[in-house]
Amino acid sequence: MKVTTVEEYLKARKNIVDDALDRYLPGEDNFPGVIFKSVRYSIFAGGKRIRPILCMASAEAVGEDRETVLHVACALEMIHTYSLIHDDLPVMDDDDYRRGKLTNHKVFGEDIAVLAGDALLTEAFRLMSKRELAGNIPADRFLTVINEISEAAGFLGMVGGQVVDVRSEGKEIDEKTLNYIHTHKTGALILASVRAGAIIAGAGEYELAALSEYGRHAGLAFQIADDILDIEGERELLGKNIGSDKSRGKATFPAFFGLEESRRMACELIDKALSDITMLDGKAEPLRMIARYIIERTV
Amino acid sequence: MKVTTVEEYLKARKNIVDDALDRYLPGEDNFPGVIFKSVRYSIFAGGKRIRPILCMASAEAVGEDRETVLHVACALEMIHTYSLIHDDLPVMDDDDYRRGKLTNHKVFGEDIAVLAGDALLTEAFRLMSKRELAGNIPADRFLTVINEISEAAGFLGMVGGQVVDVRSEGKEIDEKTLNYIHTHKTGALILASVRAGAIIAGAGEYELAALSEYGRHAGLAFQIADDILDIEGERELLGKNIGSDKSRGKATFPAFFGLEESRRMACELIDKALSDITMLDGKAEPLRMIARYIIERTV
Repeated sequence: MKVTTVEEYLKARKNIVDDALDRYLPGEDNFPGVIFKSVRYSIFAGGKRIRPILCMASAEAVGEDRETVLHVACALEMIHTYSLIHDDLPVMDDDDYRRGKLTNHKVFGEDIAVLAGDALLTEAFRLMSKRELAGNIPADRFLTVINEISEAAGFLGMVGGQVVDVRSEGKEIDEKTLNYIHTHKTGALILASVRAGAIIAGAGEYELAALSEYGRHAGLAFQIADDILDIEGERELLGKNIGSDKSRGKATFPAFFGLEESRRMACELIDKALSDITMLDGKAEPLRMIARYIIERTV
Repeated sequence: MKVTTVEEYLKARKNIVDDALDRYLPGEDNFPGVIFKSVRYSIFAGGKRIRPILCMASAEAVGEDRETVLHVACALEMIHTYSLIHDDLPVMDDDDYRRGKLTNHKVFGEDIAVLAGDALLTEAFRLMSKRELAGNIPADRFLTVINEISEAAGFLGMVGGQVVDVRSEGKEIDEKTLNYIHTHKTGALILASVRAGAIIAGAGEYELAALSEYGRHAGLAFQIADDILDIEGERELLGKNIGSDKSRGKATFPAFFGLEESRRMACELIDKALSDITMLDGKAEPLRMIARYIIERTV
């Protein structure tokens, strides 16, 4: 794949992920049709596919082919999408729009939206455990990856972060709580995405440790950048109510530290992410490109 | 374990499962406390543990120790419990009580109830993929079991059944739809419970086929028996509104075929379940005992 800019790289990778998701997910002609329509509606609602892209780039950094981890990469996107569907529910964040499109429950009803989230989460594990997609990779690597991803997505990770987030709305929170929310609600699954690619690729101890630090730093920078964009971005570009996080008293870095300091923190995290993987060779170049891009979006 | 009656057997097995669930689930002192309280509230709300008991009995029928599959058995109960928490939500069945106790969302709020269900489903996969609990069983057996259980729980199984169930309420449905709901909403996970135990135990092709037929027949009989109990049982005994399924126009066997015919169908299914496993030796006796008990409850 000949790529000249990071935008082209990300677009090409997004296409690969979108095609694979379309192949892996049962069609809308399956019974009962409404659940497959609902699941596909949210999966193809225009996500950036940052988690699957990181997963594939991480496998490649260790010397494995991206095809080998493609189904695990897609499973990560399913888990991310399920979390968005449930987060948008009236009993949670109560959002009518996401990325310029009506949220799942506004189109299919709240009952189906709950079930579509449940189905996507479950399907992620079905996909990761498919032996016919494992190639010649040992089964125990997939078991390890399933274990890490479920830890990152559950009450010790993403769900835990969401619990603290919904229960903090409109309250004064301290820096420790802000950090807990971000490292758990978003950071844990991004870190797991990077680690998953590396583990399936058979990364050595030092490679895995380096990539984990990269994932930790880039993941938090990504969330801070998203918070900045939420405030600064334009409605047309992002397709959701700008400043909606702030208006509800959400715990965000810009709300806590201000825009300038948040931008400085994100830059510092990206510097760390880049230095975390200096020991890796040219095959890690896409990971470096993605890290720099996270910051470029916000300036 | 010396047991004289099926009730004693089931009680002893339930205690084993309860103790294991208590060990496996993080304590309420973990942060954020509310999610661990919420998860534990529903897990320890008095379930019969029929899925884990079947999983262990199936492993034993093949000659494996029940301890080997205990964590998979508990994971099945977590998936069952998550489905109950989400089913009870106001946007789904809107139930205030289950087994005589307030439902999860009535105690912890709807946001936490959604997240508690999500957390339990995710935790089930974390538990099944724990390598330190795998003993000397090959990793690929666990991968197979995770794949089968996620298929049984997802949109091609339990979630699919629930979709058709909630979308059929108050409507005239045909026998095909009734069968779809029951084989998917309840039957699929019970079948997967029996198969999971057998697969981890290393069942041969014929044993697995026999146990699968047993699981299919006993699973459907169990659901019919539950429907009969829902109509006939006493409020004090079951702790939920008797006839509540019928009053909402739920698709049940007694509502469709009448009580007598439903009872006859359940008996016939149990006869089939028993004959499915005639080729298995005395180690399958608990499975036979459980099958007969399913019917005895309803007369």
